[in-house]
Amino acid sequence: MRDLTPLMRPASVAVLGASERPESLGNRVMKNLVATGYRGRIFPVHPTALEVEGLRCFSGLRGLPEVPDCVAVALSADKVIDALEEAAACGVRAAVVFASGFAETGEAGAGLQARLAVLCERTGLLVCGPNCLGLSNVQGGVALYSAPLPQPPLAGGVAVASHSGSACVALSSTGRLGLSHVVSVGNATVLDVDDYLDFFAADPGTRVAAMFMESVRHPARFAAAAQRMRAAGKPVVVLKVGRSSAGAAASAAHTGSLAGSHAAAVDFFRRAGVVLVDDMDTLIETCALMAQATKRPAGDGVAVINISGGEVALTCDLGQEAGLSFAPLGSATLARLRECLPSYATPGNPLDATGTSIGNPDMYAQAMRILLDDPGVAMLAVSQDCPPGLSPLAAHNYGRLARAAAELSRDAQKPIVFYSNVAGGFHPTTVAPLAGTDVAALQGGRAALAAIRHFVEWHSHTPAAAAAPAPFDADPVWRRRLASGQPLSEYEAKRFLGDHGIRVTREARAGDALQAAHEAAAIGFPVAMKIDSPDIVHKTEAGGVHLGLATEAAVRAAFEAMTATVRQRAPGVRIDGVLIQEMVTGGVEMIAGLSHQAPFGHAVVVGSGGVFVELVRDSSLMLVPVDAASARTLVDRTRAAKLLDGFRGAPPADRAAFEALVARLSAIGELYGDCIEAVDLNPVAVLPSGACVLDAWIGLRNPSRVQQTPGAHP
Amino acid sequence: MRDLTPLMRPASVAVLGASERPESLGNRVMKNLVATGYRGRIFPVHPTALEVEGLRCFSGLRGLPEVPDCVAVALSADKVIDALEEAAACGVRAAVVFASGFAETGEAGAGLQARLAVLCERTGLLVCGPNCLGLSNVQGGVALYSAPLPQPPLAGGVAVASHSGSACVALSSTGRLGLSHVVSVGNATVLDVDDYLDFFAADPGTRVAAMFMESVRHPARFAAAAQRMRAAGKPVVVLKVGRSSAGAAASAAHTGSLAGSHAAAVDFFRRAGVVLVDDMDTLIETCALMAQATKRPAGDGVAVINISGGEVALTCDLGQEAGLSFAPLGSATLARLRECLPSYATPGNPLDATGTSIGNPDMYAQAMRILLDDPGVAMLAVSQDCPPGLSPLAAHNYGRLARAAAELSRDAQKPIVFYSNVAGGFHPTTVAPLAGTDVAALQGGRAALAAIRHFVEWHSHTPAAAAAPAPFDADPVWRRRLASGQPLSEYEAKRFLGDHGIRVTREARAGDALQAAHEAAAIGFPVAMKIDSPDIVHKTEAGGVHLGLATEAAVRAAFEAMTATVRQRAPGVRIDGVLIQEMVTGGVEMIAGLSHQAPFGHAVVVGSGGVFVELVRDSSLMLVPVDAASARTLVDRTRAAKLLDGFRGAPPADRAAFEALVARLSAIGELYGDCIEAVDLNPVAVLPSGACVLDAWIGLRNPSRVQQTPGAHP
Repeated sequence: MRDLTPLMRPASVAVLGASERPESLGNRVMKNLVATGYRGRIFPVHPTALEVEGLRCFSGLRGLPEVPDCVAVALSADKVIDALEEAAACGVRAAVVFASGFAETGEAGAGLQARLAVLCERTGLLVCGPNCLGLSNVQGGVALYSAPLPQPPLAGGVAVASHSGSACVALSSTGRLGLSHVVSVGNATVLDVDDYLDFFAADPGTRVAAMFMESVRHPARFAAAAQRMRAAGKPVVVLKVGRSSAGAAASAAHTGSLAGSHAAAVDFFRRAGVVLVDDMDTLIETCALMAQATKRPAGDGVAVINISGGEVALTCDLGQEAGLSFAPLGSATLARLRECLPSYATPGNPLDATGTSIGNPDMYAQAMRILLDDPGVAMLAVSQDCPPGLSPLAAHNYGRLARAAAELSRDAQKPIVFYSNVAGGFHPTTVAPLAGTDVAALQGGRAALAAIRHFVEWHSHTPAAAAAPAPFDADPVWRRRLASGQPLSEYEAKRFLGDHGIRVTREARAGDALQAAHEAAAIGFPVAMKIDSPDIVHKTEAGGVHLGLATEAAVRAAFEAMTATVRQRAPGVRIDGVLIQEMVTGGVEMIAGLSHQAPFGHAVVVGSGGVFVELVRDSSLMLVPVDAASARTLVDRTRAAKLLDGFRGAPPADRAAFEALVARLSAIGELYGDCIEAVDLNPVAVLPSGACVLDAWIGLRNPSRVQQTPGAHP
Repeated sequence: MRDLTPLMRPASVAVLGASERPESLGNRVMKNLVATGYRGRIFPVHPTALEVEGLRCFSGLRGLPEVPDCVAVALSADKVIDALEEAAACGVRAAVVFASGFAETGEAGAGLQARLAVLCERTGLLVCGPNCLGLSNVQGGVALYSAPLPQPPLAGGVAVASHSGSACVALSSTGRLGLSHVVSVGNATVLDVDDYLDFFAADPGTRVAAMFMESVRHPARFAAAAQRMRAAGKPVVVLKVGRSSAGAAASAAHTGSLAGSHAAAVDFFRRAGVVLVDDMDTLIETCALMAQATKRPAGDGVAVINISGGEVALTCDLGQEAGLSFAPLGSATLARLRECLPSYATPGNPLDATGTSIGNPDMYAQAMRILLDDPGVAMLAVSQDCPPGLSPLAAHNYGRLARAAAELSRDAQKPIVFYSNVAGGFHPTTVAPLAGTDVAALQGGRAALAAIRHFVEWHSHTPAAAAAPAPFDADPVWRRRLASGQPLSEYEAKRFLGDHGIRVTREARAGDALQAAHEAAAIGFPVAMKIDSPDIVHKTEAGGVHLGLATEAAVRAAFEAMTATVRQRAPGVRIDGVLIQEMVTGGVEMIAGLSHQAPFGHAVVVGSGGVFVELVRDSSLMLVPVDAASARTLVDRTRAAKLLDGFRGAPPADRAAFEALVARLSAIGELYGDCIEAVDLNPVAVLPSGACVLDAWIGLRNPSRVQQTPGAHP
């Protein structure tokens, strides 16, 4: 862990390129630094200027009265390396580099960025950027920041770190999130979001981190930092962009970093105990709630109160879509509500307390109290629209409901939140009673309900138990074989799997028709026959699959026909012979796979097999390691779980065997991941007893190039 | 069509129950009426008061100097009927009834509401309400409204009609939507949303209707009104709540009306050319765009410009989720953009014009112009965050980009819209240049992109061609049979289908084992055998299905075994014999169904058959009538369409035959819908040539009750 103090709380700062020229980078940085009321020492540095922003200017770093903790480098890209060399030589420990012109601009810039990385590695210099807006310690009053800053800043517990400068500006200008720090991470050559997260974890003024991320460059470091945040009781809320294929491409074009597949990112953040959101509004509402709430929900049951039946119906719709659990109310609660509310009210959750509440806030308060008293209710959401254009009287009336919520919260043990189904701001009169309380005011029905779900889930998170160790060790003979990069045939792939405890079809390889018939008789009829070639993946298309052969004569004929067809359709491929396989029938067809998901490492994927795979895309992914217990969760997330459990009266399949297989696949990823790019087991027959791989393909990480032939792997 | 002028634009109004008592209903209504500057004549009516709100008060309706067009009934529920009787007798033509205490409160209230309906039916009185906030003609300055109204009102082209009073308040208080009318529809005993929609269609001041709906009570009237809105070039944007099961229940509890199934509602609104949205924010943003934009997009290709790569990635993600089409840019466009933008920019759509734009709005304007010039671009979205807490300088800088968009729009042929990825309000400086232009400012990335998609789609809507007429007439013999309400056995159901041109399995009914064997031989082995009973729907569970019987002996044995098992498992059910059916193998298994979807009438549903049905819920619904052409669209919406078209090298199935079958099913719904509640064809084998129904069940609308037995239909 790096100590970011010299960067985030410097005792003194030199601004290289400080300038009086309006709108120049050096002037904007100086202005921000002065305007924040920075109490440390500021040393403007400029070759000729005598004074900048009223402060004495120095002609060079070496002439300063002391070595500053940090330099703000307001210079163009071509001057950055020299400036940082000199700073490091002087003993400066941190720097902010604003300039663009690095990896985001192409090859030359990437070269410059590589030099910057080497310099920092050698000198230990902590660098924020390049290609960033810099950073602002809002609570501490230090801005090394090139964009305009809200004045006065809204200080509070939310720390912002963003790969995107534009998002950084937006998140620091909501007028609603009180901020501890704002960091525009930029190209993150040296310091990335994980480093800032580490700092936030230890920072007493930070309660929650709001992050806009284009990529996860250092998964292990990020996970460790997220873990430290959680240990400190501070939620990390991440908006990760690039989940669509187009978004990933856009992001990659921007940062020069490849966005990982989104399913892998989702699993990564879930494991890290991070709240993952998918738009700016949900990011803002979630952070607003996390920062302001002080009580923990003891469970996931949420109660919602509103004054309108129509809005209650809307809450049902949006809540269900957000995955919220509405606590079912106990009969005592319902009875008390019936007594409290008008006779025509229909007590339930969400609760329509009726429009009568507007004129009767005491009744409303009592209804809230009754909901909070229900043991199944972990949290109360007070749902009341309060758009900014309300008439003063309506705003006042609604404000009485908000006040009732605030008063109730003073003594309540359970968290209370207020939200409006309409975004676009609050009428100030309505939400005024909530200021300074632990009742956050949220806006936008969809974003607010998502925020509430994230809040409840964050508090109910139980860290995953450490995965059980891999059930076998790596085999040095197989490791050498895999490391060779020579493609494996199906026969060889299955031997590899069999040697690692995964059941595969009984099979034999035959070099001629007679041998084929002989092997078939030994295995028992009927058999399947498949061409055995390391060069052919789509055997069916190449004419290399015959099924259900019931006699020796049929096997002999199939051998001749198959080899002839394949030779014709895919001339030049290597043919190692023909596989004679037992026909496994029945069971539930599943797929299981292993694939490399940069930057997160390998992941296992399970899903429905057969026609489901491509048609329904019923699959679920987890990053390695996945032990049998986790595999159970993984399978539960697929629709196929129902099939395995015995759908519509069918006998249950041996789920445990399939899950053990998945755990072994994960162990293969762990132990041979440096050699193996991907494994496809498709299909796996999950039988009433056991699970058997019917077809397997293993792709190696550095396969020697084979000639592209029809049916060959693309 | 009713003429709502006396209600919406009354020349004179009497307020029954006008009062000086602060906060009383009669006072609130009077205050609003006076405050709006109503230019018509106002007659407060109160038994004893001499003056209310400075106006001379009358002791009764009969004492007025003239018959008012409309009465605002500020009386409690028990006094409403008498007051309306008198008003109608005096010649009053319209009324607003605010009081609750009608159908929403239970049985007694429902009785009162029924009396109100009868009264209006008899007298022709137009009534808004009861249980409503009333209405406000914002442009005309007439408020017959009980809740506080924003002052001054924001007049404009958006007409609001809402079943929910609370939503009505929210929609009329956004501070962003300029309003023509606001109508709180309430219980809609007489006038419902469709009546107001008719009025809005003819109202010159209305450009778009924003509707919050809990139910569709009069589908045909609503569709006709929506059609008139479209003919007038005015979009209808509907937020229909109750799409979740819980939401539907909540809404029903509130209004006493059953919310229809959401899939049927979706199809209904789609056919009506109505924009259906699913939250308040999307409703607001869509209406804001529809009301302000003046140009039509010529196509669905949208171009988006932003100054940030990270936000462009976010736009890709949210745009894809919103179903937006990003126009692919032509090579000439890309070349021009490369010339215009900094060398390190990566031209594309969405376009990252880079942060350089902030200091160079001319370059940004040029990039926008280039995007608009691309023939594939139908519309330009300028994506720029501008949250209310921006620093003045940032707001000014961003405002220059907004100004460039506004200036460009003056001469552009294509629509331009501005949006912020952040909801929560705009910084006024940034959006000021857009005021009075046709460039709408939207907020919240998700809602704004959905609004843009709705805008583009609304303009590209082509009304569905009238469905081809039913391919047959109703058969009077079958009609009598169905009207009897006696359940149909599978055998009878299939005869019905066969008589209407739908291919079913060849089959015969056998009363004993010998006859069964005889029929099987005639059909050809192998055969399937099924118990034939009108009382048993789940034949498999009752032991009533044997498949693949290949010999006469097997058929005889199966007959005895089956009848014995069924008698034991489901004692007392009627057994009409055993069906001997041809075994149809191969093809793609589909389902097709017909069901009554109140209040919309019958709908056909198609989907994947077999295990898919319940596991994947891959189905798609359309309201009757569905001809073969529409059936094609219906099938296209299922994943199974791929299977039918020949998935992974399989031969294509006879989709046309299946679609013709669906059209015949729809015709059955049209012609026998008064007798038939539902039809399940499950499965239908769609063969390489033809489509054959393997199993069929027809549920009648008034079936005589049969004893509940195991396996009987629930």
